Amino acid sequence: MRFFSDNAAAACPAVMAALADANLADTAYAGDRWSQALDGAISTLFEREVRAYWVTSGTAANCLGLAALCPPTGAILCHEQAHIEQDEAGAPGFFTHGAKLTLLAGDGAKLSPDTVEAACARVRYDVHQVPPMALSITNATEYGLSYRAAEVAALGEIAKARELGFHIDGARFANAVAFTGQSPAELTWRAGVDVLSFGFVKNGGMNAEALIFFDPVRAEAVPRLRKRAGHLLSKGRFLAAQLLAMVEGDVWLDNARAANRAAQALADAAGSARLVHPVEANELFVRMTAPEAAAIRAQGYDFYDWAPGEVRLVTSWDQDMDAVETLASAIADL
Amino acid sequence: MRFFSDNAAAACPAVMAALADANLADTAYAGDRWSQALDGAISTLFEREVRAYWVTSGTAANCLGLAALCPPTGAILCHEQAHIEQDEAGAPGFFTHGAKLTLLAGDGAKLSPDTVEAACARVRYDVHQVPPMALSITNATEYGLSYRAAEVAALGEIAKARELGFHIDGARFANAVAFTGQSPAELTWRAGVDVLSFGFVKNGGMNAEALIFFDPVRAEAVPRLRKRAGHLLSKGRFLAAQLLAMVEGDVWLDNARAANRAAQALADAAGSARLVHPVEANELFVRMTAPEAAAIRAQGYDFYDWAPGEVRLVTSWDQDMDAVETLASAIADL
Amino acid sequence: MRFFSDNAAAACPAVMAALADANLADTAYAGDRWSQALDGAISTLFEREVRAYWVTSGTAANCLGLAALCPPTGAILCHEQAHIEQDEAGAPGFFTHGAKLTLLAGDGAKLSPDTVEAACARVRYDVHQVPPMALSITNATEYGLSYRAAEVAALGEIAKARELGFHIDGARFANAVAFTGQSPAELTWRAGVDVLSFGFVKNGGMNAEALIFFDPVRAEAVPRLRKRAGHLLSKGRFLAAQLLAMVEGDVWLDNARAANRAAQALADAAGSARLVHPVEANELFVRMTAPEAAAIRAQGYDFYDWAPGEVRLVTSWDQDMDAVETLASAIADL
Amino acid sequence: MRFFSDNAAAACPAVMAALADANLADTAYAGDRWSQALDGAISTLFEREVRAYWVTSGTAANCLGLAALCPPTGAILCHEQAHIEQDEAGAPGFFTHGAKLTLLAGDGAKLSPDTVEAACARVRYDVHQVPPMALSITNATEYGLSYRAAEVAALGEIAKARELGFHIDGARFANAVAFTGQSPAELTWRAGVDVLSFGFVKNGGMNAEALIFFDPVRAEAVPRLRKRAGHLLSKGRFLAAQLLAMVEGDVWLDNARAANRAAQALADAAGSARLVHPVEANELFVRMTAPEAAAIRAQGYDFYDWAPGEVRLVTSWDQDMDAVETLASAIADL
Repeated sequence: MRFFSDNAAAACPAVMAALADANLADTAYAGDRWSQALDGAISTLFEREVRAYWVTSGTAANCLGLAALCPPTGAILCHEQAHIEQDEAGAPGFFTHGAKLTLLAGDGAKLSPDTVEAACARVRYDVHQVPPMALSITNATEYGLSYRAAEVAALGEIAKARELGFHIDGARFANAVAFTGQSPAELTWRAGVDVLSFGFVKNGGMNAEALIFFDPVRAEAVPRLRKRAGHLLSKGRFLAAQLLAMVEGDVWLDNARAANRAAQALADAAGSARLVHPVEANELFVRMTAPEAAAIRAQGYDFYDWAPGEVRLVTSWDQDMDAVETLASAIADL
Repeated sequence: MRFFSDNAAAACPAVMAALADANLADTAYAGDRWSQALDGAISTLFEREVRAYWVTSGTAANCLGLAALCPPTGAILCHEQAHIEQDEAGAPGFFTHGAKLTLLAGDGAKLSPDTVEAACARVRYDVHQVPPMALSITNATEYGLSYRAAEVAALGEIAKARELGFHIDGARFANAVAFTGQSPAELTWRAGVDVLSFGFVKNGGMNAEALIFFDPVRAEAVPRLRKRAGHLLSKGRFLAAQLLAMVEGDVWLDNARAANRAAQALADAAGSARLVHPVEANELFVRMTAPEAAAIRAQGYDFYDWAPGEVRLVTSWDQDMDAVETLASAIADL
Repeated sequence: MRFFSDNAAAACPAVMAALADANLADTAYAGDRWSQALDGAISTLFEREVRAYWVTSGTAANCLGLAALCPPTGAILCHEQAHIEQDEAGAPGFFTHGAKLTLLAGDGAKLSPDTVEAACARVRYDVHQVPPMALSITNATEYGLSYRAAEVAALGEIAKARELGFHIDGARFANAVAFTGQSPAELTWRAGVDVLSFGFVKNGGMNAEALIFFDPVRAEAVPRLRKRAGHLLSKGRFLAAQLLAMVEGDVWLDNARAANRAAQALADAAGSARLVHPVEANELFVRMTAPEAAAIRAQGYDFYDWAPGEVRLVTSWDQDMDAVETLASAIADL
Repeated sequence: MRFFSDNAAAACPAVMAALADANLADTAYAGDRWSQALDGAISTLFEREVRAYWVTSGTAANCLGLAALCPPTGAILCHEQAHIEQDEAGAPGFFTHGAKLTLLAGDGAKLSPDTVEAACARVRYDVHQVPPMALSITNATEYGLSYRAAEVAALGEIAKARELGFHIDGARFANAVAFTGQSPAELTWRAGVDVLSFGFVKNGGMNAEALIFFDPVRAEAVPRLRKRAGHLLSKGRFLAAQLLAMVEGDVWLDNARAANRAAQALADAAGSARLVHPVEANELFVRMTAPEAAAIRAQGYDFYDWAPGEVRLVTSWDQDMDAVETLASAIADL
């Protein structure tokens, strides 16, 4: 049973049905009826007028968003464990034409207002140093923690004061909404966020993510940037349809809740002594010796060796709850 | 009835079935069984060992291919009507970090050996001028002509002599194979081609194209370049599965033949006096006055106004042959 | 005697004296008294408030200027023989992060309003095509013609209407001013020009060019772009001092007049039948058979073979008038 | 009296004389006799065949060197206080098209082999992470420490083992040679260094730095990269002449010794308790309260406030030794 990554999960039924429904001729690129409906559906979900763009990967969503917020001469403040730093092959440098990522520390891959403020204060705003122009956080974080709306808002205040464009890598934003119980609006634009990469693929989508701009002015260059990066697909309706299918009826939220529930069951079984971080989404980082990990694996469970003595388990929207329970027992029995 | 663009057509049944079959958990990115099988399937089709990469758009395929062939300091020779020049929003400049497109003329968007040789001969190979480093042609061309293998080979010889990486934009490569009756191998590496963007989306795919390197050494940087451009999808199996489904049983070729057949029927109806270019793939450029075009449209046919007095009709793999026949009659009756 | 290129000439006495005067410790980069005086001196010369930046090459001046006017997603309209296209090794692509040069034709390397308007009219302003965002002309042109103020203004009107940033490559701007007798202001901002690369090196400078913005808002990014490109020299005073020395007392104009005078003497000797282009600056393109060219060279004159049957002669600020007269006689005697 | 920065010092007499000597017409760009002599002179100095290129700034030298060593998809390991990170406005990102700087810690802005090895060991060499491709150190460091040849060689071994191109930012390389008494060869290629930015401007030059490649193969792209970045000056002889003048007769070494001597005199006066770092070149970082700093400034000395309670003094090749002595006394009297 696979607890390796939510990236590997299947696409959910609503998505597969939507693909079948969209399988007819319509206008190419983003001119089709599904793509045209996207702004409206996402605006409703976020309780304000937004611009929403489908793209096929989280890296594309993050980097197009950052490119819209930060010129080549600027720096993007982010956590040293941020996905944009660790796992995107330098894509931010490509999309921004060489803007810098300025790396900050923080427990659980979370940034605190003090850390961000200090990073800004350290910079001489002269022509020799690279000025911070954007702030990017990940919610839920790479270590499975969820920022609460008040935490986001505290960062948003600094972003406003320091004139930083504020971006959220929301590869697991749905999981953060599910965990905090706070609304998409509260966790984003009401807290000062300018751009959200809203992940659907890890949460039951096939290959569509949503890049959302809360300020249409910030989005002006995006359609061209998307095309120029090869991310304007000719049959865009198949992406838009996935997003619409998951937004309608809150499939995205149900899926995230299911994944979180599975993670909580495992967390309860592991107990706090084993948990490296609180479990606030669908990822667990569990202290486990190599023999322990081997014993669990021998029972048929697949997961990631994160660091010596530490494994990562990720649950998915479709995680089989029987398998979760047996894995939970196995962990509890260690 | 839609004769606007093959970009707008549906995905074919084999593709939809393959997506359903691939809808289970597997390794993420390109580690899944479908992605792992891609090199083999494409190698078989091309009768030599190749490296094949799925991407989601023709622009991405073209530009990753060109980036692998041409450094930022070089120029890419192409036709002035090439898709990479006219319709990719400057993506080649983005992916190559500013390499130049040197535009050449030629009837029907075809390049001749003389034109290419003259372009090379014009350049001073000093430090002030940008040296040609790559050659890119489109087959079938933007005007629906197909290069024969001998024509490709004549260009390939110049490419070799001038040390130009040789790329084919094969958005409609299947149509060229179908029209010429020459094999994929004959039309590419046997004729000196280094890289092929093999289009599937216009030919019945949903959102997968194949970027094919005939020389594995040339491909070394591609996995990183693909990731860095946000084109390494996390559920890559859904792309690989589309390609495999269309390669197996020659679905790609059947689809292209169907589209070409529809185009030939229309071409026959139009007659050579109306045809701006010979019809050698699935596109027709037809001389038609504005009132004539309006009359055809009034009968329910949709197509593109290419230029004053000229319309473009594109047929698709799933073009309804009844509609084709009634349109053919309508054109013949003009 | 050298008629090969004004690039090869010596630095003029005013420049050498200024370098000696500036040879003392002062603030680094552009904080010194000379650099601080530059805006004022250039503003006086151009009869309006400008921002002026020293750089060390015409390529840097042109490309920093273009980068300020054109985003990576745009195109720069220019003549197909423009220096930025022919002789800068693709630097515009580097500085603009891949913006396109759209090449236009025109006699004598001059652009006409019709040509520029037609280029704009050809573009679909959709997401697939690259929209023109800037216009760049060279005055005097690469073939030694000078635009008159009215010609510049006609282009300026189109630039304004089409929202194109308007740049002049003025590597030989001084020669154009000297030839036309029109003022720097008339030939630039009064005619709608936004940015001028004002060349000093070909005109008696050692290694300083002036990049001039007539609209300070357009210049905002320039100090960072200059630094980021390695063009903010630490002892900038030695560049500023050169520019100030040539602006004071109109050394720049006297030098250009001297070079133009020498060119006119040669033009008179050659006669209109031999001249490929009218001589309106300090360059001559002269029809000459290979034996004729050899005969002249045998008398000790060095110049450039431009094309079969055509040579280029360039005069400099310090051209020895005796040598000019003997060369003129030699040409007249052919 | 100025102890602010060696960037601000005058050009030395040998340089001024060389500029006068070079002030005659010669071939443009790098075709002149001085530029042509550069490889030979630098090869002699370094006791092996090298390729040497003049450029006008340390930023250009560093970044052209790094661009030759590191592709856009790679990372450059450097100290977190490195000039390329702190003071070049993101130029490495511009020249390398977005390669990453991976920042490492170390006392006195020095990198240790363990730190470099650990940085390499941390990276997963998969397609998601950015692999280190180059190593850049500064000698003398930004805090005025000099690497000894053995220290460089220890890093060179890791560079070789890890296939990292090895670059030295030698803005104050002359000072390191003067301090260590080790030869240019020992401190560079004999220790595994591939590329050196050899600074002359801080050491008595006007505006010429030398970019030196110990492996000609690594340098192949440099002439084009230099031109494309606007750093191929048309009257290059004025740069080459400066370098030649300082290499001949070891002017560069005499100048560095003079600056180091002045720094040592101040260091002796300050005493080790006040010195933040050992003084091994021409920079001093001195603990000084704000009132103390004010008292020194009141006596006419200018210097930089580095951090609260810490000032930076930099001595130059032409530092007046009387001023040094009176300043030394003033510091000793604090």
